[in-house]
Amino acid sequence: MVYLDYAAATPLSNKAKNAMLPYFDEKFFNPSAAYLPANEVRQDYEKAKGDIAHVIGAKAADLVMTSGATEANSLVFAAIPNDAEVLISAVEHPSIVENAKQKKMRTISVDQNGRIDIEDFRKKLSSKTQLVSVCFASSELGTIQPLSDISRIIQEERTRRAFAGEETPLHFHSDASQGLGLAELKVARLGVDLMTINAAKVYGPKGIGALYVGRSVRLKPQSYGGGQEMGLRSGTENVPATVAFAAAILDADKHLGGERKRLAELRKKFKKLLAEQIDGIEFLSKEKVQLPNFLPATIPGLDAERLIFALEDKGVYLSTGAACAASKGEKSPTLRAIGLNDDQIAGSLRITLGRPTTEKDIELAAKAIAEVVAAERARLTK
Amino acid sequence: MVYLDYAAATPLSNKAKNAMLPYFDEKFFNPSAAYLPANEVRQDYEKAKGDIAHVIGAKAADLVMTSGATEANSLVFAAIPNDAEVLISAVEHPSIVENAKQKKMRTISVDQNGRIDIEDFRKKLSSKTQLVSVCFASSELGTIQPLSDISRIIQEERTRRAFAGEETPLHFHSDASQGLGLAELKVARLGVDLMTINAAKVYGPKGIGALYVGRSVRLKPQSYGGGQEMGLRSGTENVPATVAFAAAILDADKHLGGERKRLAELRKKFKKLLAEQIDGIEFLSKEKVQLPNFLPATIPGLDAERLIFALEDKGVYLSTGAACAASKGEKSPTLRAIGLNDDQIAGSLRITLGRPTTEKDIELAAKAIAEVVAAERARLTK
Repeated sequence: MVYLDYAAATPLSNKAKNAMLPYFDEKFFNPSAAYLPANEVRQDYEKAKGDIAHVIGAKAADLVMTSGATEANSLVFAAIPNDAEVLISAVEHPSIVENAKQKKMRTISVDQNGRIDIEDFRKKLSSKTQLVSVCFASSELGTIQPLSDISRIIQEERTRRAFAGEETPLHFHSDASQGLGLAELKVARLGVDLMTINAAKVYGPKGIGALYVGRSVRLKPQSYGGGQEMGLRSGTENVPATVAFAAAILDADKHLGGERKRLAELRKKFKKLLAEQIDGIEFLSKEKVQLPNFLPATIPGLDAERLIFALEDKGVYLSTGAACAASKGEKSPTLRAIGLNDDQIAGSLRITLGRPTTEKDIELAAKAIAEVVAAERARLTK
Repeated sequence: MVYLDYAAATPLSNKAKNAMLPYFDEKFFNPSAAYLPANEVRQDYEKAKGDIAHVIGAKAADLVMTSGATEANSLVFAAIPNDAEVLISAVEHPSIVENAKQKKMRTISVDQNGRIDIEDFRKKLSSKTQLVSVCFASSELGTIQPLSDISRIIQEERTRRAFAGEETPLHFHSDASQGLGLAELKVARLGVDLMTINAAKVYGPKGIGALYVGRSVRLKPQSYGGGQEMGLRSGTENVPATVAFAAAILDADKHLGGERKRLAELRKKFKKLLAEQIDGIEFLSKEKVQLPNFLPATIPGLDAERLIFALEDKGVYLSTGAACAASKGEKSPTLRAIGLNDDQIAGSLRITLGRPTTEKDIELAAKAIAEVVAAERARLTK
């Protein structure tokens, strides 16, 4: 089996699993209880939050733990009035697009690599914009967005509003789920007020994510109750998952430099193998602006879904696009936005490498992909 | 160590843990992905939902999986307009009270056992009421509410509205977190339209719960994105936790009869031991209307918090009330509602037994409680 869909899901690392296990039974106490073993669980929980925060250059008190990226993203948009203008990029994940549709959504154009068009952003940023939400990296292309450039323009607009005596708030949010463990994600350097991260993309458990909330931002709870997470997200803390998230993110951070380099080299080889063996394959976006594990490609004239099913028989698993969008059979708005035609979209594959991926894996996968492409072309020309 | 706070948290059962583990690594796939191993994960997830639903007399399609009881409760209240009237009992968990406070909240009185006053309910149910939310059992007293009686009155009011041509909807919700694994919870027999359940109270993992949503109810999503859970709760499914929840609830259901009997007998002995050894101890609510594992009590004139800390030194862990409320140092509205005076509230302990509790445990605990009470009384009369 060669799994090449790490952008959709990652296995739990042993470090994360081992960190989590004691909290299922020995240390199962409710962190809000008054007795000592529960206090210790509370401390472990706060330490885990501190560790997660540290990796993004923040403090435990800046994080609201959530059940994942979608909840974190939804918490951001819930704070924005329904009649307010929000700006998102044309390559956002459905959890941003669907949230933005609840408001007055405007979309920032992207270039052929999927990077936002800064001039289009300047033009669309108006005195009514209350939220700008641009991913750290596209979940379909791996393209990294120029967040600090966006942040500077937002800062200019804030200054203008302050001088003009305008009180409309303006927040900058980034869903950085896809970049976690693959890039440096320091909130101050990126210039974001709000940032979503997710354990399930970084070899942590499913069902746990976090929202970084800068000091200047006031959110509105979506869950009411015991007042956990500074009143922003009530409910008994998911201690095992949070502790595992911390172990996973610390581990990824520790090996970040080496792993980025290893993945980039693997990708280069993979690309070369595919280019040599498959006539007409086109690679999407550019390595220079891409996460090191992303290898989106298209083989115009072929049906990617047929390829996926044929590859399944050979034990090679990859995706035609973001898993969520793929399951609903919709054509990818991201691929449309970078200017692909129908044939290119129909033939597009999302290949993403991960920590367990080896050179042997990519050789096997390249061979398998070349074989199914050849078979499919033979079928079509019969 | 003798832990007697099972209403606050339960350890994960081995069955639940073993069911969950393969989904962390071998079967970590995103259930929305298109290839076969991901489809298998999707099927396992749907089967787990079906198993959970079966225990409450429902189908997989009736359940929205959430991150716990608080999120499930919040999803119910989010569907109600802010200016609508909601009726809750005077003994609800903070996650119901705080949600209800966002609407026009009215509170139904309870008797000295904490059971709602049906006449007061009839009186307060008005043509403007859109939601009635009454727990299956109080998290502080274990008192079981007469849900099917409430349901009948709600049905009458619906009939009246239909004949009068009134279109105001009326829903009946119950947070049954506290009863799960300790009582039969069939939605049709209880007559609820919406019911909250939670794995963390039934030896399942933290961070997973579910909302039963009857066919006549239309909810409003709080999370937008990939459209999971029939569009009501987007976000990658928490497969490991859901599979573990299913294993936990099936196991609890299988042993329900025997375990109820065992707990009721243990409680009886515990009560007898406490009554024999502690002058002036009062037991709250009545066994006849209580979950079999609840033993709330008060020792008027003593400070329960001091007792809790003294018991901690003897390795006996119990609570002064619901953990969430307790951590904020607020006086319990539940204990106030059943007519306790300040002395009774100050001296109140919440003792809850669980699956691992043995006869030996309760003998040790009764002795320890008697000792700390004696020591505290000696200190006070010095």
